[in-house]
Amino acid sequence: MSYVAPIKDMLFDIEYLANIGQVARIPGFEDAGLETAQAVLEECAKLCEGVVAPLNVPGDLNPSSWKDGVVTTTPGFKDAFRQYAEGGWQGLQHPVDFGGQGLPKSIGAACIEMLNSANLSFALCPLLTDGAIEALLTAGSDELKATYLEKLVTGEWTGTMNLTEPQAGSDLALVRTKAEPQPDGSYKVFGTKIFITYGEHDMVDNIVHLVLARVAGAPEGVKGISLFVVPKVLVNKDGSLGKRNDVHCVSIEHKMGIKASPTAVLQFGDHGGAVGYLVGEENRGLEYMFIMMNAARYAVGVQGIAVADRAYQKAVAYAKDRVQSRPVDGSVKGSATIIHHPDVRRMLMTMRAYVEGCRAMALTGAAAYDAAHAHPDAQVRADNAAFYEFLVPLIKGYSTEMSLEVTSLGVQVHGGMGFIEETGAAQYYRDAKILTIYEGTTAIQANDLVGRKTTRDGGASARAIAAQIEKTESELNANGSDNAKAVAARLAAARKAFLDVVDFMANAARTAPNDVYAGSVPYLMLAGNLVAGWQLGRALLVAQELVAKGEDVMFMNAKVATARFYADHILVKTTSLRDSIVDGASTVMALPQEAF
Amino acid sequence: MSYVAPIKDMLFDIEYLANIGQVARIPGFEDAGLETAQAVLEECAKLCEGVVAPLNVPGDLNPSSWKDGVVTTTPGFKDAFRQYAEGGWQGLQHPVDFGGQGLPKSIGAACIEMLNSANLSFALCPLLTDGAIEALLTAGSDELKATYLEKLVTGEWTGTMNLTEPQAGSDLALVRTKAEPQPDGSYKVFGTKIFITYGEHDMVDNIVHLVLARVAGAPEGVKGISLFVVPKVLVNKDGSLGKRNDVHCVSIEHKMGIKASPTAVLQFGDHGGAVGYLVGEENRGLEYMFIMMNAARYAVGVQGIAVADRAYQKAVAYAKDRVQSRPVDGSVKGSATIIHHPDVRRMLMTMRAYVEGCRAMALTGAAAYDAAHAHPDAQVRADNAAFYEFLVPLIKGYSTEMSLEVTSLGVQVHGGMGFIEETGAAQYYRDAKILTIYEGTTAIQANDLVGRKTTRDGGASARAIAAQIEKTESELNANGSDNAKAVAARLAAARKAFLDVVDFMANAARTAPNDVYAGSVPYLMLAGNLVAGWQLGRALLVAQELVAKGEDVMFMNAKVATARFYADHILVKTTSLRDSIVDGASTVMALPQEAF
Repeated sequence: MSYVAPIKDMLFDIEYLANIGQVARIPGFEDAGLETAQAVLEECAKLCEGVVAPLNVPGDLNPSSWKDGVVTTTPGFKDAFRQYAEGGWQGLQHPVDFGGQGLPKSIGAACIEMLNSANLSFALCPLLTDGAIEALLTAGSDELKATYLEKLVTGEWTGTMNLTEPQAGSDLALVRTKAEPQPDGSYKVFGTKIFITYGEHDMVDNIVHLVLARVAGAPEGVKGISLFVVPKVLVNKDGSLGKRNDVHCVSIEHKMGIKASPTAVLQFGDHGGAVGYLVGEENRGLEYMFIMMNAARYAVGVQGIAVADRAYQKAVAYAKDRVQSRPVDGSVKGSATIIHHPDVRRMLMTMRAYVEGCRAMALTGAAAYDAAHAHPDAQVRADNAAFYEFLVPLIKGYSTEMSLEVTSLGVQVHGGMGFIEETGAAQYYRDAKILTIYEGTTAIQANDLVGRKTTRDGGASARAIAAQIEKTESELNANGSDNAKAVAARLAAARKAFLDVVDFMANAARTAPNDVYAGSVPYLMLAGNLVAGWQLGRALLVAQELVAKGEDVMFMNAKVATARFYADHILVKTTSLRDSIVDGASTVMALPQEAF
Repeated sequence: MSYVAPIKDMLFDIEYLANIGQVARIPGFEDAGLETAQAVLEECAKLCEGVVAPLNVPGDLNPSSWKDGVVTTTPGFKDAFRQYAEGGWQGLQHPVDFGGQGLPKSIGAACIEMLNSANLSFALCPLLTDGAIEALLTAGSDELKATYLEKLVTGEWTGTMNLTEPQAGSDLALVRTKAEPQPDGSYKVFGTKIFITYGEHDMVDNIVHLVLARVAGAPEGVKGISLFVVPKVLVNKDGSLGKRNDVHCVSIEHKMGIKASPTAVLQFGDHGGAVGYLVGEENRGLEYMFIMMNAARYAVGVQGIAVADRAYQKAVAYAKDRVQSRPVDGSVKGSATIIHHPDVRRMLMTMRAYVEGCRAMALTGAAAYDAAHAHPDAQVRADNAAFYEFLVPLIKGYSTEMSLEVTSLGVQVHGGMGFIEETGAAQYYRDAKILTIYEGTTAIQANDLVGRKTTRDGGASARAIAAQIEKTESELNANGSDNAKAVAARLAAARKAFLDVVDFMANAARTAPNDVYAGSVPYLMLAGNLVAGWQLGRALLVAQELVAKGEDVMFMNAKVATARFYADHILVKTTSLRDSIVDGASTVMALPQEAF
């Protein structure tokens, strides 16, 4: 099997870190306890391991192709998507009213990880569809919901997000696509969108494009952007498919990775205008778009964890199989499998610790999302919302940046074989590189972290998290084991580094914006590192307790060893980051532009 | 122009850090002063920029191909190689007696960087040929020298290094290729070699393979390996080409990068035995092979610098051209080129500082090589040899590891466009990944650093370098400028971290080999970081002095700003590495193999 879903580790996080027991006390999630989680994860694993994972290499070798406006996906994708839809997986976290299963994100996020580990390119289609569903749920009229939602939730149709234009990448103020109001209340949409994931494909009969455009006379900049539904095929009153809409795929990109995922250039309105329907109110498109983006950003963070885990699994398998050189400690006479060698172990442990740390962070964040959206108590909702909002840029930014390091180590463990495409390790390395870019580059995540999440409230949310971390440190110190105390010490140093940076950011935000934003990405890396390390600290406490009870001792000891490794080899980086951010801010822009 | 050779920066390093004036006082290098350096670099730049660089993208799109044992290189490569050979570039550093130009490495290394920036795939052919020349110069008989050397030095033929076999990657003890002595003094060679760079191609008429094999009855392990010359085409007594030898290319690899460089599987002796000639003495092959390897390791380090610089140049050009978003400091109303944004600046400065730091380290190392090989004073030779030997794993390991980060940042600066192959940034990212693997992975370099270069002499060489660094710190502090003092402080912290690690390695080498080797790669990264940062500290002192004299003020100020940035944002990482190595050693192998 090329991929084995890490169900045990996921359930550990869901049970002890995301506290699924508490999630299941929220009205609406009563059935979503640990048993449900286990059953769902096991079922999902079957599909991901058996159907989707085997299509990963074929997707790389035989990517989606374009001919005369038609995109043909990799053989097998269409059938796999049918199985995915029929299994109800697209609707896992969506409302029962629209055909979904209404499960919490605490469970859904683990399924998303599996699907992405199995096949990053395949999983992008559901990922974007989720975003479209979120936007319609939040801002769509009853008519739009009635027409489109159930079809999307059941996977009969898929969705896309149309933001980027050639002149407007991360800067949506520059969007030029036009929408002209029509007498019947619809709009005609004209423009070009690029980088549209699954903007055209052959897996389903209709594609629901969510498109940012400007209504004539709208204000300039981001305040004049509206959101439209533009279906590939128009939908008749009775729900049946009607005429082809005036939106066409004129090409797809030739990319370094995720080759099976068609990245389309879409042309709207070249033949009289694409029919579009306003979502919500005019000029509030950016706000709705952020709903899609936030869901997608979280999911892309999970993609980072997913591809890193797959790279880790492959590297472990190779390290246990490949025989090369004598161990330095003389434990084996003659050549041994390379997992005996300390540096191979260091690489594998680094990969493992990153994956487990980021997974723990993502699932903890998912539980906060569930409470923020569905908890009956308003204060609990608000606290969890603040926590989740703080975590989203970390989950997206840190987990994807770490996936570059992990997939690179994955190639490295394979030595020369890693560079040969047939081995498969190189694909993860090529695929992962998009993750730090799309749905907002790491710098965009870092801007969000610095601006909306840290300096806007003067650092209050950040300090609230630090206070929680300090509590975990106390628990670790109270526990008193060598491992617990060592992790507590590293956590304390990292937390203090974090607080220094938060103070620096909060103080300098107005007076020295260049200094603050020069440190934005290092701050994101520091904060992500700390929060992931914190979750592993929590995990260590649980695991030690269960070891003492004799429960699943090997797994729990491994969790302790991984948490300790993370603290000593990854968390330890935070203090240097602090120095760079706080002491080195002014040197980032010291070199004048002309000197480059 | 897609590549502009950084002649000015190279000459700065050659003049002030490599001290070409001193090199030119060594007998044999009398003509190799600064003027010669400048003339050679300018001439080399013309070839690299005008002829070789334009073939880089074509090589990726239309790689070398194999059919019926024949390898056809990318169109244009053969002609470019002819120009390279006719220009005398292959012989730049080789003896005048064999048709070379006899220039020092202090100049040659800069030319090698240019060639590799222009085209990593193309440059590999000369790189391997250099290795073959070194081996023959050191250990070849007069007859072998007479037959092969001048042809190699003039670029009429090319050379290869045949080490790896399917079961023997980094572990040469496992080499199985056989050599059977023949009555005429030659040998018949039988076996399979893989990963042979330019093992077959159409650019020249003959290829001189240097092949590791075992003579029947030789001891097991590395002590039973001998080195042979196995020409692709046998050479008649009069020097003309004779019969085709029994060595055949049965396939080439499908790789993630450096696609234009054919990576051959070579089959020796399938039709009666490949004729081979012993180099030096039987069973001393490993020793000779290290001569080739050491030259090649240094050169691969330069490849890291080269591809990083090309990625940097491309990123700078894009950042100065791409308009996106308003600057956070309000310095421009409306959208500006992205080089205005602090995080883009941070990325560009990181790339620049790595490149300049590693270039300074490599050229300083080159001067030590020149002195170690040609200086009349034995003590000077020995001191320089120790210094150079210590630097080789750093130049190879650190410069190539940094090239992964730099080429990744290069893609990142381009945003979504970076992931599209047509942009070109992705090629550098894919190409660079082989550099941390071939000619010994980073872990192999780190083993060399820990074993032969650090613990063998109880850390003496390492401490001697630290003492030199301390001297530079004193000079920086005496200089007294804010930048000089800040760099001195970072250097001091990094040096102390280095010394802690050296002590740890020296003390634990026998008692706790796993702990020592668990930290070997982090130690290499710490040491490389420190030595590169030290060279930039030296550069800062020179640059400040020249600024004071009004010489080339913008360039010199840029050097100061780059050195300061390196100290605050890169050198600062060394203290965390120290903690991981010394305090975190035991956690690397804490997880038992079964738990993976």
